[in-house]
Amino acid sequence: MAAKPSRSSIRRRQEKTIRTLKTFGREVYGQIQKQQFPSTKMPSRSTANIRYDEKLRQYVLGEKTVRRTSRNIRHIRPFTQLVWTADFAYGLKSSGKTSTLRDVFYSAQAFDVNFADQQESDNIITDLETVLAMAREDMNIFPEERSEIFGDLTIEYTVPGYEGRRINLTMHPDGVAVGPALTTAEFVEAKADKVIVIEKGAMFTRFIEEQAYRKFNAILVHTAGQPPRATRHLVQRLNNELGLPVYVFCDGDPWGMSIATTIICGSANAAHLKELATQDARWMGLYSTDIQKYKLPSEKLQNVDIKRLLDMQKDPRCAGELWSSQIEHFLKNRVKCELEAFSRYGLDYVVKKYLPEKLRALA
Amino acid sequence: MAAKPSRSSIRRRQEKTIRTLKTFGREVYGQIQKQQFPSTKMPSRSTANIRYDEKLRQYVLGEKTVRRTSRNIRHIRPFTQLVWTADFAYGLKSSGKTSTLRDVFYSAQAFDVNFADQQESDNIITDLETVLAMAREDMNIFPEERSEIFGDLTIEYTVPGYEGRRINLTMHPDGVAVGPALTTAEFVEAKADKVIVIEKGAMFTRFIEEQAYRKFNAILVHTAGQPPRATRHLVQRLNNELGLPVYVFCDGDPWGMSIATTIICGSANAAHLKELATQDARWMGLYSTDIQKYKLPSEKLQNVDIKRLLDMQKDPRCAGELWSSQIEHFLKNRVKCELEAFSRYGLDYVVKKYLPEKLRALA
Repeated sequence: MAAKPSRSSIRRRQEKTIRTLKTFGREVYGQIQKQQFPSTKMPSRSTANIRYDEKLRQYVLGEKTVRRTSRNIRHIRPFTQLVWTADFAYGLKSSGKTSTLRDVFYSAQAFDVNFADQQESDNIITDLETVLAMAREDMNIFPEERSEIFGDLTIEYTVPGYEGRRINLTMHPDGVAVGPALTTAEFVEAKADKVIVIEKGAMFTRFIEEQAYRKFNAILVHTAGQPPRATRHLVQRLNNELGLPVYVFCDGDPWGMSIATTIICGSANAAHLKELATQDARWMGLYSTDIQKYKLPSEKLQNVDIKRLLDMQKDPRCAGELWSSQIEHFLKNRVKCELEAFSRYGLDYVVKKYLPEKLRALA
Repeated sequence: MAAKPSRSSIRRRQEKTIRTLKTFGREVYGQIQKQQFPSTKMPSRSTANIRYDEKLRQYVLGEKTVRRTSRNIRHIRPFTQLVWTADFAYGLKSSGKTSTLRDVFYSAQAFDVNFADQQESDNIITDLETVLAMAREDMNIFPEERSEIFGDLTIEYTVPGYEGRRINLTMHPDGVAVGPALTTAEFVEAKADKVIVIEKGAMFTRFIEEQAYRKFNAILVHTAGQPPRATRHLVQRLNNELGLPVYVFCDGDPWGMSIATTIICGSANAAHLKELATQDARWMGLYSTDIQKYKLPSEKLQNVDIKRLLDMQKDPRCAGELWSSQIEHFLKNRVKCELEAFSRYGLDYVVKKYLPEKLRALA
């Protein structure tokens, strides 16, 4: 079944970003022309204002707002930084260039806009995200980390020099880097009918080598640990725009579970954004019960693992039946297991045995 | 100028790997058939037997050898592990599969070959490299890290399912992952006439966005810090098979210099291998003197930086005029600088100003 997306969601999104940045600029200009001290209002990101929304199944910001105004001498510095950052982002978008978080920190120096350190510039970028209700990736600001994707999905680039060019993501069997160009590409057509998100590079490569992508008609996404936000957004788009079911496959330990919850329900850190969670994605393992069932080599839980599991028992994202029973099982059995442990039964075992059984069980 | 390599160096290399592994197996079998305790001899990798070879311009192993024999009860365990690992590698090569170092550790369990931990299996893999004088990557055993490449080079895959298929490495503007498939690809044709190896992802992306690869006709390689060995070998092949000059561009600090020396002269850890050093590669920056010349934002050297610089003064790989004068300059000026610092002068400055000046100076 070939999924055909409604076209040009990315181009619409890009136009919206430009429009939103322009509107913000006009507001500041307007205030100055009316001889007012320019100011802006945004939802508060303080812990007290972050809550888990049962209906949206993700963290969101509450009603509390804060105003940042150049009338207040303590606000002048962050307000100026905010306006400069918006201008910088507008420059990036208009010219089709991208920047890393670190580049933003250094670029400011040319304008005598002073950031004490990158922590400060990162914070201002998050402020700007909150003001505009828009992810920094939409403003062409990316972190350095890259994840990878592989599968029968044809994309069309929108970046300068490549605009309109298409590639199919099975083209390079080591996987295709999820950088700025891929993140801003339109989906043209997917022959695959599901998405499997994988924590470990070894398993991602295994799935390609053993042709799991073909046997299970799946697009594979390698998160390389906690996925960069651009990757979470990409997974959400695959689910949302193409209607593809998403399965998340991580190490059998609390850290793997944590990656799965972040992909599915988002994180408190990004409570000001809506497009980073894929609520209908399914956690497909490794469950604590899988370690027993498949007799996988395991290691003892450390104190830090147990502490993490106890924290997860209080996490609203882990309140469901599956999650709470697996947390209990981990705490009872006291062992954990990595994805690579499947190699114990031969390199093709995970694809021949585990994957079909699991997909059947989740169907 | 289009560089055309002599074809099928990879296929010849793959045949040689299979042959070498078979020969090793026959030797062990032969000894057993002659009712001898099987044993093998290899160069010693002890520090005392590692020396810097001025002519080869890399670390090499000396004349001292060690024998591992199943006659000695203390050797039975590592000797068995070594023979199993060779058999596992032979299985990988014959079936065109790959494995990570971690997969090897787990795979052994299926055969009741016991490794206490991954450190032990990694060591045995290094032993096997030494016995066979052949890198683990030739035996399809890879670490997890990936670097990236981008530029006008056409490659031809040799991995199963993709054999004979060609891609050009400008195809995906986020860069192409250097995994098992790329590492085992033949070079078909390079339109580029040089290679620039870059430590930082931000600069790699900048060079693509600003079309530095086109303006300077260069293949770009992103090491992501200390490059994985597969990447060092790839750089060596670009230099050796295609005759392309190589420039190495790293942070202006002792850690960047260390990446450059590893690419150029190899490392003591890999003294048993010859194909990981690119002796004619040139260090193109950031020099300590560049930080002054280009008035780049800098940070104070930490004690750990200074200690590293003092160590480098004793390192034979840093004995040349350029290296020793830059180390002295670092120690005098006491500042360091990251590649991203160029953003201070605008995102295109490094490509418009620094790069042409530097390439002219090194030509």
